[in-house]
Amino acid sequence: MNYRMVWSLLGMVLLIEAALMALPLLTALLYHEPVWPFLVTMGILVAIGLPAWLFKPKNRNFFAKEGFICVAASWILMSLFGALPFVLSGAIPNYINALFETVSGFTTTGSSILTEIESLPRGILFWRSLTHWVGGMGVLVFMLALMPKGDGRAIHLMRAEVPGPTKGKLVPRLRTTALILYGIYMALTAFQVIALLIAGLPFYDAVVTTMATAGTGGFSVLNNSIAGYHNPAAEWIIAVFMLLFGVNFNLYFFLLIKRGKEIFKSEELRLYLGLAISATALIVFNTLKSFASVSEAIRTAFFQVTSIMSTTGFVTADYGAWPVFSKTIIILLMIFGACAGSTAGGIKVSRFIILVKSAFCEVKHLLRPRSVNLVRLDGEVVSEETRRAAYNFLVFYAMIIMGSFLILSLDGHTIETNFTAALTCVNNVGPIMGDVGPFGNFASFSWLSKLVLTADMLFGRLEIMPMIIFLSPTAWKK
Amino acid sequence: MNYRMVWSLLGMVLLIEAALMALPLLTALLYHEPVWPFLVTMGILVAIGLPAWLFKPKNRNFFAKEGFICVAASWILMSLFGALPFVLSGAIPNYINALFETVSGFTTTGSSILTEIESLPRGILFWRSLTHWVGGMGVLVFMLALMPKGDGRAIHLMRAEVPGPTKGKLVPRLRTTALILYGIYMALTAFQVIALLIAGLPFYDAVVTTMATAGTGGFSVLNNSIAGYHNPAAEWIIAVFMLLFGVNFNLYFFLLIKRGKEIFKSEELRLYLGLAISATALIVFNTLKSFASVSEAIRTAFFQVTSIMSTTGFVTADYGAWPVFSKTIIILLMIFGACAGSTAGGIKVSRFIILVKSAFCEVKHLLRPRSVNLVRLDGEVVSEETRRAAYNFLVFYAMIIMGSFLILSLDGHTIETNFTAALTCVNNVGPIMGDVGPFGNFASFSWLSKLVLTADMLFGRLEIMPMIIFLSPTAWKK
Repeated sequence: MNYRMVWSLLGMVLLIEAALMALPLLTALLYHEPVWPFLVTMGILVAIGLPAWLFKPKNRNFFAKEGFICVAASWILMSLFGALPFVLSGAIPNYINALFETVSGFTTTGSSILTEIESLPRGILFWRSLTHWVGGMGVLVFMLALMPKGDGRAIHLMRAEVPGPTKGKLVPRLRTTALILYGIYMALTAFQVIALLIAGLPFYDAVVTTMATAGTGGFSVLNNSIAGYHNPAAEWIIAVFMLLFGVNFNLYFFLLIKRGKEIFKSEELRLYLGLAISATALIVFNTLKSFASVSEAIRTAFFQVTSIMSTTGFVTADYGAWPVFSKTIIILLMIFGACAGSTAGGIKVSRFIILVKSAFCEVKHLLRPRSVNLVRLDGEVVSEETRRAAYNFLVFYAMIIMGSFLILSLDGHTIETNFTAALTCVNNVGPIMGDVGPFGNFASFSWLSKLVLTADMLFGRLEIMPMIIFLSPTAWKK
Repeated sequence: MNYRMVWSLLGMVLLIEAALMALPLLTALLYHEPVWPFLVTMGILVAIGLPAWLFKPKNRNFFAKEGFICVAASWILMSLFGALPFVLSGAIPNYINALFETVSGFTTTGSSILTEIESLPRGILFWRSLTHWVGGMGVLVFMLALMPKGDGRAIHLMRAEVPGPTKGKLVPRLRTTALILYGIYMALTAFQVIALLIAGLPFYDAVVTTMATAGTGGFSVLNNSIAGYHNPAAEWIIAVFMLLFGVNFNLYFFLLIKRGKEIFKSEELRLYLGLAISATALIVFNTLKSFASVSEAIRTAFFQVTSIMSTTGFVTADYGAWPVFSKTIIILLMIFGACAGSTAGGIKVSRFIILVKSAFCEVKHLLRPRSVNLVRLDGEVVSEETRRAAYNFLVFYAMIIMGSFLILSLDGHTIETNFTAALTCVNNVGPIMGDVGPFGNFASFSWLSKLVLTADMLFGRLEIMPMIIFLSPTAWKK
């Protein structure tokens, strides 16, 4: 392990976090709220980050291992310091709760321990929503855009942070790739803010809601989530943008460079949209009776489906009270997640496709042992390495879910609550079912459960491997 | 596909089933119950089985594909005909219910649709328990013992029917292996019958309970399962034998040939026993308050743990009413199952070990990309093929559970009920949780759910692949 190299990168991450905190600080100024919680945190971040960053190590070796450790450590440090404004401002006095909320923000989960949101300072809520926006695309991807070209560290960081089994570079240069990704991200964000303003949302609400949508996070500034706006137009806009932010950003790039045909070739996109439409249709049929009109049923079902599939987690209806069939669809959608290369969590549709195709490939192999059976995605052969990574992801994923499910059960909530809590956190979705319900929150869980779920969210957002390597003692040997 | 070759083997299977039915027929005679339901079924079996068996095909090609198809078809046909005595005798008038019960028997699941068991004829209940005993070791393994030596079909049948990732032949000759396995099986069965007689159970009860234990099935002749005997000694005996029947039979063979040291080398056995002991200890601590004495708590927890781990499914306590932590342990144990090469269902402990070791192998590979990392079990390298088979098992397993979970939800039972119903049937365990409860039964499910669960039991017992191949149209091409 090249510790010094890792430290210098982590220093940069902390400085970026300090810079980001200027935005909630400005918001606090604007609304005449105390700014010292942000100033103190920024001071600490600079005091630790600047020396680390300035210290230039001689040994510039940086391999995959350092990349994984760096990514995991960045996310953990950002969360540990990012929780400070919540504690200092008194919004969330308990540090474990504040850490849960911050990790939930950065990992774009959107699970909350807050029971009363609307009375909190606007600067603090802005910071809470900003963590979603930053976490959605990833702070290290952002850093790549700032790194000098030819920096050998870039590829290892990119590989470790960007989710999904397909890690295509858009253009030969990583730096340019990172800039394009953030460009698309900002443009979509701007479109949504404008759309929500037209739909009649106040500017502040439009911005924070959009940040939570863009990162597929799910924090809302209202106690009743999006249901609190009673604004059907806004619901449609948010639903459509949740769906859009769950799409692989590579496809938007293809659209920009006028290779739009590539989009329709994407098996992942077709299955993603197919699942969204069929799930919506099934839920509409199943819940129709409980709505005043068909259009309301369609809007509510579509909103909930895109919210869960994109792993955002906004809520407009208490689907905990829906018929069991619809609830089951929601639970299963939690697992799938959206497309690789999007800001969403979950297993990812393309990983699911690779796993299923590989399994059927094995069937073919058993039937004709001498035939060569390759797994293809979008016409291209999926490498043995990618397939193995998908398999191991599934194994670790199942172990994490089962382990969390067991530890959570010590709290005494129902089986349904514990199971959906583990699922919602590992998949970075946010809301829960069972005795807590989608409008509920995680306040009633013990500190142990909160720590387990906090770890789950990090495991999920970083797609497991960086965290496993961070936790394995062998990785830390010199 | 060599249809004729498959037909001739299936004919033999049907004839064996007819022969097996002589035992419940004798029981019926003994208790002065009508014997015609058995006679009619035996007549049909012979009328179809004999010509099929006598017809000797010229083309004697028989490959892996034919092996899989043969195994799946045998189990399906045996169940379709094995359900007839239940319908003809009026014990289970509805054919779908009778099929569910029969498949539950042969697959050693032990889930029942019967609400009233004790009033049924003894011959019928004997048949019900006998299906467990036959299904435990497998009727095709039995057939291997009868086949002439040098029959090329044997190895493909053995591979397709015997569960678990390790398919070791005990001795070079398959026929001898099959004979040894059945010998051990019969000896253990005899020991348990004697032990239960000493504990004071009536002869009939001792025999049928032992058959259900040996096959790790779980059907009881009492409405309240083993709890109905109020016999602590019998509970201990059954618990210990459930544990024993969940052990890889190869280890008993090593014991016989005085290579007992091999037993302690088995990582699977150590983890299996370790899990059983730790789960028992955790449940005892968690439920102690609700028992009159510590010894009762230990007995009940140990019984339930061995019952679920060995996928038998006998019940002595309503663990649906236990604290959520203990319930969660029970649910997780359902998934693991027992050892490969035993009569039990589930994912199997050794497959779990291979999956977890493979996943950590990948971590090592990421840390040191050039190092060679092999997965070892009991000191021997696990082949790439075995690992891939374990991965694909997991993928299909997850898909089957999720699909069943969704279809079951149409019935309106709770999430917990549907989830544990899918788990219990795919893993061949038997009892359920949620609103139905461990003493409950599957009578309240719709015919669609029953058919899905029937298929799940077959998928689980045959460890998925034979059923997938049976259902894939390409396998049926000439």
